[in-house]
Amino acid sequence: MLNADRLLPSEPRARQIARNLYEHTRALPVLSPHGHCNPEVLAENSPFTDPATELITTDHYLLRLLYSQGAPLESLGVRPLDGSPAEEDGRLVWRSLADGYHHFRGTPSKLWLDYTLEEVFGVTKPLRADTSDEIYDEVMARLGGDDFRPRSLFDRFGIEFLATTEGALDELDAHARLRRSGWNGHVVPTFRPDDVIDPDRPDFRDNLDTLATLTGRDVTTWGGYLDALRSRRATFIDAGATASDHGHPSPFTADLSTRDAECLFGRVAYGTLSPGDAEMFRGQMLLEMAAMSVEDGLVLQLHTGSWRNHNASLAALFGPDVGGDIPKSTDYVASLKPLLDRFGNYRQLRLVIYTLDESTYSRELAPLAGHYPALRLGPPWWFYDSPEGIRRFYRSVIETAGFSNLVGFNDDARSLLTIPARHDMSRRLNAGFLAGLVAEHRLEEEEAVDLAQDLAYNLARRTFQDAP
Amino acid sequence: MLNADRLLPSEPRARQIARNLYEHTRALPVLSPHGHCNPEVLAENSPFTDPATELITTDHYLLRLLYSQGAPLESLGVRPLDGSPAEEDGRLVWRSLADGYHHFRGTPSKLWLDYTLEEVFGVTKPLRADTSDEIYDEVMARLGGDDFRPRSLFDRFGIEFLATTEGALDELDAHARLRRSGWNGHVVPTFRPDDVIDPDRPDFRDNLDTLATLTGRDVTTWGGYLDALRSRRATFIDAGATASDHGHPSPFTADLSTRDAECLFGRVAYGTLSPGDAEMFRGQMLLEMAAMSVEDGLVLQLHTGSWRNHNASLAALFGPDVGGDIPKSTDYVASLKPLLDRFGNYRQLRLVIYTLDESTYSRELAPLAGHYPALRLGPPWWFYDSPEGIRRFYRSVIETAGFSNLVGFNDDARSLLTIPARHDMSRRLNAGFLAGLVAEHRLEEEEAVDLAQDLAYNLARRTFQDAP
Amino acid sequence: MLNADRLLPSEPRARQIARNLYEHTRALPVLSPHGHCNPEVLAENSPFTDPATELITTDHYLLRLLYSQGAPLESLGVRPLDGSPAEEDGRLVWRSLADGYHHFRGTPSKLWLDYTLEEVFGVTKPLRADTSDEIYDEVMARLGGDDFRPRSLFDRFGIEFLATTEGALDELDAHARLRRSGWNGHVVPTFRPDDVIDPDRPDFRDNLDTLATLTGRDVTTWGGYLDALRSRRATFIDAGATASDHGHPSPFTADLSTRDAECLFGRVAYGTLSPGDAEMFRGQMLLEMAAMSVEDGLVLQLHTGSWRNHNASLAALFGPDVGGDIPKSTDYVASLKPLLDRFGNYRQLRLVIYTLDESTYSRELAPLAGHYPALRLGPPWWFYDSPEGIRRFYRSVIETAGFSNLVGFNDDARSLLTIPARHDMSRRLNAGFLAGLVAEHRLEEEEAVDLAQDLAYNLARRTFQDAP
Repeated sequence: MLNADRLLPSEPRARQIARNLYEHTRALPVLSPHGHCNPEVLAENSPFTDPATELITTDHYLLRLLYSQGAPLESLGVRPLDGSPAEEDGRLVWRSLADGYHHFRGTPSKLWLDYTLEEVFGVTKPLRADTSDEIYDEVMARLGGDDFRPRSLFDRFGIEFLATTEGALDELDAHARLRRSGWNGHVVPTFRPDDVIDPDRPDFRDNLDTLATLTGRDVTTWGGYLDALRSRRATFIDAGATASDHGHPSPFTADLSTRDAECLFGRVAYGTLSPGDAEMFRGQMLLEMAAMSVEDGLVLQLHTGSWRNHNASLAALFGPDVGGDIPKSTDYVASLKPLLDRFGNYRQLRLVIYTLDESTYSRELAPLAGHYPALRLGPPWWFYDSPEGIRRFYRSVIETAGFSNLVGFNDDARSLLTIPARHDMSRRLNAGFLAGLVAEHRLEEEEAVDLAQDLAYNLARRTFQDAP
Repeated sequence: MLNADRLLPSEPRARQIARNLYEHTRALPVLSPHGHCNPEVLAENSPFTDPATELITTDHYLLRLLYSQGAPLESLGVRPLDGSPAEEDGRLVWRSLADGYHHFRGTPSKLWLDYTLEEVFGVTKPLRADTSDEIYDEVMARLGGDDFRPRSLFDRFGIEFLATTEGALDELDAHARLRRSGWNGHVVPTFRPDDVIDPDRPDFRDNLDTLATLTGRDVTTWGGYLDALRSRRATFIDAGATASDHGHPSPFTADLSTRDAECLFGRVAYGTLSPGDAEMFRGQMLLEMAAMSVEDGLVLQLHTGSWRNHNASLAALFGPDVGGDIPKSTDYVASLKPLLDRFGNYRQLRLVIYTLDESTYSRELAPLAGHYPALRLGPPWWFYDSPEGIRRFYRSVIETAGFSNLVGFNDDARSLLTIPARHDMSRRLNAGFLAGLVAEHRLEEEEAVDLAQDLAYNLARRTFQDAP
Repeated sequence: MLNADRLLPSEPRARQIARNLYEHTRALPVLSPHGHCNPEVLAENSPFTDPATELITTDHYLLRLLYSQGAPLESLGVRPLDGSPAEEDGRLVWRSLADGYHHFRGTPSKLWLDYTLEEVFGVTKPLRADTSDEIYDEVMARLGGDDFRPRSLFDRFGIEFLATTEGALDELDAHARLRRSGWNGHVVPTFRPDDVIDPDRPDFRDNLDTLATLTGRDVTTWGGYLDALRSRRATFIDAGATASDHGHPSPFTADLSTRDAECLFGRVAYGTLSPGDAEMFRGQMLLEMAAMSVEDGLVLQLHTGSWRNHNASLAALFGPDVGGDIPKSTDYVASLKPLLDRFGNYRQLRLVIYTLDESTYSRELAPLAGHYPALRLGPPWWFYDSPEGIRRFYRSVIETAGFSNLVGFNDDARSLLTIPARHDMSRRLNAGFLAGLVAEHRLEEEEAVDLAQDLAYNLARRTFQDAP
């Protein structure tokens, strides 16, 4: 079903160039420096039990669009927090998707799933109501084979580097078991300390207690708290981490005096918060994280601009990550200034920005990244990790920031099974964009080959593995 | 003059696919669920008297661009409010347009008018200073024929459903006469109650008095006021209405307690307004309108984001709708939250959003519509109802919201004569966009045929006629 | 190295049309109504001494991207303010660029420099580390010839009109010498009075003293201050100026009563500023400048929306204009209203808006320019003066504002040597955009020829030379 030229430009001359560029990157190893795969899966290496859970129930893209068209989340296997029933038969969940699969025409979700079904599972029929059961059975059968165990797939997919994402309090057991197992797959954690940095989280103060226990530090003082974070970072680095990640609502940063920071920490940790304190604290902590990155070398990733759980009643019923996160307008120029004033000129720092507000691509992000040595632009994230989204990103940022201020591709995948689909789409779109430049004589074809390889491999490696 | 392939992609393979898709929709009936045609025209079925009045003087697109290039509005037939003279000879108004027609190169206005002249009136020469009189005479002559009476054109244009737009106080006489006449054209009103909802209107309190008279309700109380609105909605529904429409400055919504709403209504209706009261009242009323829609099934349309009569001195001289409305930056994510918190998860509600701020397409509107069951996206409105505007809309929203969360096309026409031009442009652009997806193997051609028919007909029908 | 079809569309039919359109404009004279060339260069007509200084050290586009990739500004010849050393050997500065030239793949900087090297200097090898010295020597040698003296280049480039940019206190000596020299090149100053209008400048009050001295006016009163500005404008007009230019942080305008303006001026000029006073004063002064333009006919240009010297420590080390200016989100609809309320309907005023926030193209600028007689849109500025930037500009504004509300191209060049490269790129992109319209039958080819010539020449002439 998959056409060999899919996602390449339709104009014949550009398509021919794009095919060549794609061929130069198609078989390159996969680097996955940011995503949400569960390391447990690779530590255990047990067979995946159910394709519906793995590919539907945990995929917020599929959930949201089916929900928007009237499908109850329960029918997709999402269980209400109060214990009310949800569909538990994977075959029926799979049918719910098949029934609504036409809603995904024109979306990247369909491109990814079609790829996964055909290239990973060898399915040769389109997913529809009348093929649903047959395909479900076929996928289920394959998943039982040894060649579909997670580590086998990891190897088959050519994954050379995989970073998962863990909270600051994660004890990294799965990663420890992975290392002890003697398996040679390169899988590392990422330090995502929102749980102990964001005072708006209901579990924030409990988390501080756990942080104290884990690190043996006195987290009732500002200095002790920072030391505890340093300690966790060191632990993550020992487990192979090369990056931190921060999911703040906004990219606001602050640079308070030590005295003001101490007072703010006091209010945040065991006092009463004033309005604005939480945002100020998150902002100050981004600056502290950058300071620690300068010391310990972790790449600092910033995923901001999402209004989490915008659909409050749905979040109350089902919890987070069921499709109710909505982007909002974001300012980077003023927000990042305190951090950039301190560290923007540091060449040894790598601050990688991801955005959900594309109006900032040409106005803010490309000019900032094209100037500050510490800044790099992450690839199109979330709704922008799509054919049109990726094209708009390149067209909006390259002319100002160049290719060298990018960090290549992230798949942001939640399931190992979907990683190849995302990298393949990315490599095809890179080839298409570069082919357009070549066809208009804005780039030589040999230069485009270099750049295609940079975008598919070298930039990610340079940023996340060979960082200064 | 009109090329058969106009507005289709120039790349030959994509053009061939687009031709096929266009052919599958070209002759479909026209659904016009939102626009500003005068129902009187169809009720009377008298011949149109003057092409200049019908096609120039009442077209704010033509007025604005000619005005920007120095043409006095009087020369275009627009009469000052103070009774000062304006050009009354349609032939001379027509000449003013012909003289400035080169300013419209590259604009949709020219595409629409060229289509109307050739396809509706059979004109075969381009409009220029030296052809102006001849074309005027030709159009004038045709308008005198019985086959150019409004109902004949309605049939010839294949219009299956036409919604007009009326204030809450409109007594719907024309619609009543239409129904009584026995003519089988399907023409319905739309409930647009800005006149009795927007406290910033100078006639607001007078309008409340009229509302009381019309409905026999006591509109001095919050409850009575809401009842009066319910009553007007019922009257509109009796006259065939399937939708309401709201032209608020912003999409701000509010969800006050009954007590707070009562107090606010008191200030707004017969007290002294505090700063912010008018916006708060409009916001509360959107929520009330949504609540009533849940009860009575009217589709709720939201046309927001325009700074009406930005050119204050021009509005003082000539009144509203002479081209001085300017879009402004709009936020939907916070503004709509109160309404969505209450009704966003209702499957039986249809809330259709139109925007003049395209920076919200991918950042806000597609993510919201791709999640909330109640939300749908209206087609590109006003300055965005254009070849490039429509392309950007599809490229920005489809990947996140899918096609199923759209409502098809609206022509927003002010004259019956211009309806076919707008639907034809829309269908060609749909074909071109879908052909691009097919040419890049992102969609099968049979799927594209379905989607082209959905965009041209089924989605509008489903939203505005077969609403739950 | 330069392909004859570079920057034209790759689709063969559109390319053929574009070639034809380009040929109709390729050899038209160059009008350069806005830029930053040093008039001294033409007054002296001495040979350029060093290609590195002329083409690298003073080019903020090159500095910023090289700096972002780790090159110290000193290595590019930029001297720290404290007298610390910088590279003085042009050959080594040139090598620094050559070493990092691959970072410019896909940027307009590379297109411009490649053009300049080949078309202006006859270089036939690509710039790389291993060709750096050879190319430097070749360029150096050419610069020594009489045919590379500034006036010879001015003639060879076909420049018919060149406006430079001067502060209000500039005594226009170079311009006086130019006129006295008997040379027939048309070079005029532009009145850029930020130095005596922006109270946030550290030298503002000193500048007022100088203004008093220069004009013999009492600038301690609001009326005297305005008179002094009128006097400077008259002096600039005597020297040939046809325009003013204003580099305010935002397009905010104000229309205070005379009394309020007097009080504000008092605080600003010799009192204590309250928060907001500086912005209010700049806003009031834009209105005053518009009022003077109505009297004296200067075109009013507005370059706003840049956060100057965002990189505070770099600015402290090296001063302004080293690449640390970052655009920010800008509002025009509310900001310009006071000015437009007063002068927006004046046909004899020409207010030209340039922006760094492209999200305003379709939402604000095109609707404003497509309505107000006084408004025109400047060409894509700074980061938007690029292939993709120019295409997005046309696609976003033409459908609403038409071509007639544009002012053609500005090169904004800082060196005479780079002027032809910029106009050539612009003319190719114009041809490509128009060819796309022709290929889709949205425009006739003869109309496109007219429009290509308008964009390349007539619109600039009409706006800046034949102003009413």
